[in-house]
Amino acid sequence: MSALKNVLDELRKISYLNGAEALLSWDQETYMPEGAGTARSNQIAYLSTLTHNTMVGGVMKKNLAELVDLETGDIRDESLPEMEQRRVKEIWRDYHHAAALPADFVEEFSKHSSMSQQLWVKARKANDFEMFRPSLEKTLAFKHREIGYLGAMDTPYDTLLDEYEPHMTSAKVTVLFDEIRARLVPLIKDIQAVKERVDNQLLRQNYPVAQQWDFGVDMLKVMGFDLKYGRQDKSAHPFTTSTYPTDVRVTTRLHENDLKSALLSTLHEGGHGLYEQGLPVEEADNPFGQAISLGIHESQSRLWENLVGLNRHFWTFAYPKLKAYFPTQLDGVAVDKFYKAINCVQPSLIRVEADEATYNLHIMVRYEIEKLLINENYPVSKLPELWDDKMEEYLGIRPDKNANGVLQDVHWSFGAIGYFPTYTLGNLYSAMWFNQAQIEIPGLDEKLAAGDLMPLRNWLKEKIHRHGRSKSAAELVKEITGQELSAQPFLDYLEKKYRGIYGL
Amino acid sequence: MSALKNVLDELRKISYLNGAEALLSWDQETYMPEGAGTARSNQIAYLSTLTHNTMVGGVMKKNLAELVDLETGDIRDESLPEMEQRRVKEIWRDYHHAAALPADFVEEFSKHSSMSQQLWVKARKANDFEMFRPSLEKTLAFKHREIGYLGAMDTPYDTLLDEYEPHMTSAKVTVLFDEIRARLVPLIKDIQAVKERVDNQLLRQNYPVAQQWDFGVDMLKVMGFDLKYGRQDKSAHPFTTSTYPTDVRVTTRLHENDLKSALLSTLHEGGHGLYEQGLPVEEADNPFGQAISLGIHESQSRLWENLVGLNRHFWTFAYPKLKAYFPTQLDGVAVDKFYKAINCVQPSLIRVEADEATYNLHIMVRYEIEKLLINENYPVSKLPELWDDKMEEYLGIRPDKNANGVLQDVHWSFGAIGYFPTYTLGNLYSAMWFNQAQIEIPGLDEKLAAGDLMPLRNWLKEKIHRHGRSKSAAELVKEITGQELSAQPFLDYLEKKYRGIYGL
Repeated sequence: MSALKNVLDELRKISYLNGAEALLSWDQETYMPEGAGTARSNQIAYLSTLTHNTMVGGVMKKNLAELVDLETGDIRDESLPEMEQRRVKEIWRDYHHAAALPADFVEEFSKHSSMSQQLWVKARKANDFEMFRPSLEKTLAFKHREIGYLGAMDTPYDTLLDEYEPHMTSAKVTVLFDEIRARLVPLIKDIQAVKERVDNQLLRQNYPVAQQWDFGVDMLKVMGFDLKYGRQDKSAHPFTTSTYPTDVRVTTRLHENDLKSALLSTLHEGGHGLYEQGLPVEEADNPFGQAISLGIHESQSRLWENLVGLNRHFWTFAYPKLKAYFPTQLDGVAVDKFYKAINCVQPSLIRVEADEATYNLHIMVRYEIEKLLINENYPVSKLPELWDDKMEEYLGIRPDKNANGVLQDVHWSFGAIGYFPTYTLGNLYSAMWFNQAQIEIPGLDEKLAAGDLMPLRNWLKEKIHRHGRSKSAAELVKEITGQELSAQPFLDYLEKKYRGIYGL
Repeated sequence: MSALKNVLDELRKISYLNGAEALLSWDQETYMPEGAGTARSNQIAYLSTLTHNTMVGGVMKKNLAELVDLETGDIRDESLPEMEQRRVKEIWRDYHHAAALPADFVEEFSKHSSMSQQLWVKARKANDFEMFRPSLEKTLAFKHREIGYLGAMDTPYDTLLDEYEPHMTSAKVTVLFDEIRARLVPLIKDIQAVKERVDNQLLRQNYPVAQQWDFGVDMLKVMGFDLKYGRQDKSAHPFTTSTYPTDVRVTTRLHENDLKSALLSTLHEGGHGLYEQGLPVEEADNPFGQAISLGIHESQSRLWENLVGLNRHFWTFAYPKLKAYFPTQLDGVAVDKFYKAINCVQPSLIRVEADEATYNLHIMVRYEIEKLLINENYPVSKLPELWDDKMEEYLGIRPDKNANGVLQDVHWSFGAIGYFPTYTLGNLYSAMWFNQAQIEIPGLDEKLAAGDLMPLRNWLKEKIHRHGRSKSAAELVKEITGQELSAQPFLDYLEKKYRGIYGL
C-alpha cells in the first residue's frame, strides 16, 4: 500500500495548493483592492503551475504507475480492495487529464483566458462583438488543441463536455434536450397565451439590502449551512468556493429594487455550499472527498433554489419571516400572490434572470451553438446572427443588441465550452432527487411548511454529498432513484406546477 | 547575468508563495470561519515548506554560487555593478539564513510554535504560568538549536536580534537603552509628582464603533494610504500585511468605550501600510522591494501614531473632524483638553496600552529578561518573579497577576525572542526622521495643522520607502540625518513635549 500512500501524500499537497488558490480567487471577487489584479493573476497562475507539476511529477507518476497502467487506467494491483481500486481510477482520471496537456499549453492558455476574459468585459460594455471576436477565435483554436491532446471522444465536443460532466455524451444530452424542448415550448406558449398576467411588480419595490442580507442568512441557517465552517459575502456575481470542507464560502449580490435576485441566489449558492460542507472531510484531499460533476453540483443548488425556494409549502414557513423584514412593502400581499409573483414565467433575453422554465431554453441555444463551433467550425463572425436566430426560434424573442445576446455570458471568454449543458442537467437531476426525497421523507411537504429543512438536507448528505466521487453520476442516479437519468420528472414537475399557477 | 536572472526567477516564485501565504494568514485573522483552523495551519505550513525548499533548492544554490561564495557571501562576479552586488548580498543573506536551518528543524519548530501559541492563549486566560512554562522551555531549547545552526554572534542573543534587526548588536542596544532609561525614569517621576492629573476619562465615554471606523478611514486617506492598493479590516489584534505592494492590508480593533485605542492603532498600522505601499513595485520580488528591518518598519508606524497622531498641530486639523463624528461626547471639550487627554502619561501594567513615554520601559524589561534567558540560561520557573521585580524597578508598579505580567505578550509563545527591542528602536528612528523632516519640509507644523500630510508622506517615501533593502538601517540613518542612530532626538522630543503638557 505504500505506492497508494505516496500518491495520497502528493494529493494532500495539491489539496493545500488548491485551498490557497481558492482563497486567492475568492478574495479577488470579494475584498481584493482594485489595483491588485496583475499580482493576483501571477500568484494564482503560479499555484496552478505548482499543482499541475505535482500532479504529473515524478513522485506521482512512479507511484501511480505501480497501481494502474498510466495509459489505459487499468488497475495493476488487483489486491487492492474494490473501493481503493475506484479511488485509484479517479485519481488516474485526474492524472491522465493533466498529463495529456503539455505544461506550456496550460500556461499559454491560462494567460490567454485571463486576457480574453478582461477583453470580454470591455466588449460587453461597449456592445462590440467585433472587439471580442479575434479573442474568441483564438480560444476556439486552443480548445481544438486541447481536444487534440485529450483525444476526440464520440465527437470533438464530447471531449469538452466530459471535462465538466464525466461520462456524459452529447448523444445523451441531445436526446434529453429534445425531450425537454418538445414539452417545454408548448407549455411556455400556453402560459404566454394566458390573458391574466402574473403580477411580479411587487418584487420590484424598494427592499433595503441590509434586511435582504439578514433574511438570506436566516435562510442559510434554516437550510443547515453551517457558519462555523463557512461564510457568506457579497460579490458582483454570486459563486461558491471551498478552501476545504471546513471552510466553504458562498456569495450573493443584493439589489435594492429586486427582492428575487438575492433571495434565489442565496438559496442557490447555499445549495452548492451544503454539498461542499457535506463532502467527507476525512477524504478531503482525494477524489472521494470531491464533487462528482458540475451537473451534480448544480442539482444541489437548483434543488434548494427552485424545488424548495419556489415551493408553495416552503413559503408557508418563510413568507411570514420575509414579511417581518418588509412589513410595508408586503403589506396586504397574501402568500399566494407572492408565490405567483416569484414564479412568474416570461421569456426574456438574459439567462441569469430567467425563470426556472424558460431557463432551459437559454441553455439549449448555447448547447447547439457550442456544438456548431466545435464540431463544425462554424464561423465566429456569424455568431451574433446565429445567436439571435436561435433565441427567436426557442424563446420567441430577438435580442436588441449583442450585449443582451451573444456577449452576455462570461463562460466562453475563459474557454468554458461544454459547461452550459450541466446547468440543465442539474435541473433534471434535482427533480429526480426531490421526487425520491418525497417518497423517502414522510411528510416532506409539511416539513417544508414548518421550516423543518434538516431532514431534506440530511437526506441529500446521506444519499449524495458524503459519497464524493466514489460513485459516478449515473451510478448515483441509479442507486438513489432506481432509474436512469431522465427529463420526465423535471418536465412533469414544471407542467404540474405551472399549469396550476396559470390555471391551464 | 543569466545566473542572476535565474536567481531572480526563483525569488519571483517565492514572492508569489509569500503573497498567497500572507493572504491565508490575513484571512485567518479577519474572515476565516472558526472551524477552518486546522486545514488553514496545514495550508500555511505547506506553503512555508515550498518557500523554504525553493530558497535552498538546487536552482537557487547553483546560480547563486556563480555570484557569491555561498559560505562567506563574498562576491564572486566582480563585474556586477555595485547595486547588483548589493542586491546579491541581500539575497545571499536570506539564502544563508534559510540554508543554515535544517528542513526538519524548521518543520518541527513551526509545529511547536503553533501549539505553543495556542497553549499561551489558554494559560493567559487561566492566569497560569505553570501551564505555559514547559512549552516556553521547549521554545528556548529550539532557540538555542537555532543559534547553534546560525552561529553565535557577539553573544548568543545577538544572533536572534540580528534576525529582526540586521546588523544591530545588543552592545549598541544596551548603550541606547541605558541612555533612555537615564533620562526617561526621572521624567516619568516628575510627571507623576504633578498634583493636577490629566483628565483622560473623556476618552472612555461611549463612542459608537461605526463612527470610529469612519473617522479612521478618513485619517488613512489623509495620510495617503491608497485604498486602490490596500484596505482596512477588523481583527482582534491590529496588524499590517501585504500580498504585494499593490495589495497592502491594515487592520484595526474598535472598542465602544475607548476612543484612543482604534484611533492610534489605525494611524500605527497606516504607517506600516504606507511603508509597504511605498516599496518599489518593480522590485517587489527581491530584497530591494522589501522592508529593511522591523525597527525601520516600526519607525514608520510610530511616526504616524506618535509624532503625528499625538501632535498638537495635527489635532488643529483633525479635532474638528473628530468632533463632527462625536458632537455629543466631545461637546464643550476644547482641543487642548483633548490633546492632553490623549497624551496622558501614566505607568501601567500592559505594554500595548502604554503611553509613548512609559512604553519604552516595558520594552527594557523584556529586553533584559530575553538576554538573561538566552545568554545566561536563566531558569524559566523564576520568570514571573523576575518580571514583577523588573516592572517594579522600571515602572514602579508590580503586576497583580501573571496574566497582567509575564503572560501578557504573544511574542515568546511563538519563539519571537529578540523582537521586542525593535519597538523602541522604531521610536528612536522615528524621532530622527521627524526632526529631519521638520528641517527639509518648510512649514511642516502648519501643514499638519492644515491636514496637508502628503508632503510628509512623500518625504518618507522618497527618503525611506522607495529604497527597500538597498540600504542598511545604519546607512539610511546616516544618509538622511548625517548622524548615527541616537536616543537623543527621541528623548529631547519626549522631554520638551511632556514638560510642556505637565508644566514642568
